[in-house]
Amino acid sequence: MDLWFTEYYTKNARFSIKIDKHIISLESEFQRIDVFDSYGFGRILALDGYLMLTEKDEFIYHEMMTHIPMAVNPNIHDVLVVGAGDGGVIRELTKYNYINKIDMVEIDKLVVDVCRKYLAQTACKLDDLRVHIYYEDGLKFVRSKYNEYDLIIVDSTDPFGPGEDLFTKEFYGNCYKALKTEGILINQHESPYYPNDALAMQKAHKKIKSVFPKALVYQAHIPTYPSGHWLFGFASKGLDPIGDLNTGWKTLGIKTRYYNTDLHKGCFALPNYVKELLKNA
Amino acid sequence: MDLWFTEYYTKNARFSIKIDKHIISLESEFQRIDVFDSYGFGRILALDGYLMLTEKDEFIYHEMMTHIPMAVNPNIHDVLVVGAGDGGVIRELTKYNYINKIDMVEIDKLVVDVCRKYLAQTACKLDDLRVHIYYEDGLKFVRSKYNEYDLIIVDSTDPFGPGEDLFTKEFYGNCYKALKTEGILINQHESPYYPNDALAMQKAHKKIKSVFPKALVYQAHIPTYPSGHWLFGFASKGLDPIGDLNTGWKTLGIKTRYYNTDLHKGCFALPNYVKELLKNA
Repeated sequence: MDLWFTEYYTKNARFSIKIDKHIISLESEFQRIDVFDSYGFGRILALDGYLMLTEKDEFIYHEMMTHIPMAVNPNIHDVLVVGAGDGGVIRELTKYNYINKIDMVEIDKLVVDVCRKYLAQTACKLDDLRVHIYYEDGLKFVRSKYNEYDLIIVDSTDPFGPGEDLFTKEFYGNCYKALKTEGILINQHESPYYPNDALAMQKAHKKIKSVFPKALVYQAHIPTYPSGHWLFGFASKGLDPIGDLNTGWKTLGIKTRYYNTDLHKGCFALPNYVKELLKNA
Repeated sequence: MDLWFTEYYTKNARFSIKIDKHIISLESEFQRIDVFDSYGFGRILALDGYLMLTEKDEFIYHEMMTHIPMAVNPNIHDVLVVGAGDGGVIRELTKYNYINKIDMVEIDKLVVDVCRKYLAQTACKLDDLRVHIYYEDGLKFVRSKYNEYDLIIVDSTDPFGPGEDLFTKEFYGNCYKALKTEGILINQHESPYYPNDALAMQKAHKKIKSVFPKALVYQAHIPTYPSGHWLFGFASKGLDPIGDLNTGWKTLGIKTRYYNTDLHKGCFALPNYVKELLKNA
């Protein structure tokens, strides 16, 4: 059999992964959800046909969203995660025993149910006692929060479909309000390479910058995302991701396969063309 | 018309670019050479079916091979470039007016001829008066050199086919001998992600490390190379790419679209899984 999952990065570029089995395909109220067993990438999750994660490289995305802020502020106890139905960010957060509370707001319960059943690699810590899952709209959820979180991680889909609200100025403004003084906002920030992704990146940066006094962008190599060059946003009310990096992180003994302290410093050094795009956002 | 150029990264993963026209296809003594006009990536060059460069992102590869060593040692006057028939590395090197001599050894004259004719974006400086092109085997050429170059850049194809010799311990040993005391060897170092590339990376690193007292690896985001996560080797008789970074580089006024001094420092910070692979090489 010759079965391939293909994602079009633009109408002129596409990436394909050979599939063994189509495990499940469901249509939720919000999106189409597919799980495949692939050759070479383990199990993979797609939402509306876009690849969300592969077992082979999801660690890169989830580590980079989680450990960067955790290493900057060693006093993060209350965390809000928006989206992230696969549980990967939650798995990384639960490695910190001093986190007290993890609120997770995922609009689509079916994504969580599917991941619990078919993607234990990421969903394995969703039952941690500190995790409280709210099946709600992230934008609405955060609207009523004030000075409540040390960290908000926005692990959203792209800025169209169910994830669209999570790229609005209103949402970023509400996140600002929901964060404590030392609070940090991390968001998946699209990619600088293909024109549509680059535009989404610019728009997101412009909005975040208009709300947060500190708004930086960092990068990681995620081979199964479009271009493999993926960006994240680090926004805060003052904390600097490098200047305030807590050198004590290493002593926590947290095992990572991508993240380390040198890379933490290195990943904020962006190529000139990306800096240009952000400056002109 | 619906015409696609496809490269298989493994038998289970492939990347495709939509093609407008197949400009030329030739068979040299060493390999098959193809030039295409693509949609979205400009003109592209393939050797034996492997994508060598696209006009859209070749700047990343060529800048990272050239400016990293040039910024470490400000006294680089004599340079040897092995491979690099497309001329991209030469174009970057000619931006330094204090370089006196650039020897280029390319085994396949037809690659150079094709690039001169169809890829002016990279081949544009091959006629610089400082450039001397030798159509010879790189391994043999470097064998007779002693204490002659400040910098050797190995811009080879993969470690099979015509590029194979350029991944041998003998070749690295000859490069060591051909370099002056402050000499630097840069080589394209494959990728850590797909198993075959990772193995090639490990083998190359092991050999270079056995020859050079200093052997580091740095990374760049090159979206049209397998996984987008590409590595380069920096080897020297003593110079350290960060400790000896010459802060005067900025004052040269060289325009780059990817490289900058912060990124220079950042690109040597590798993910844990890559460090592990290199350690176990």
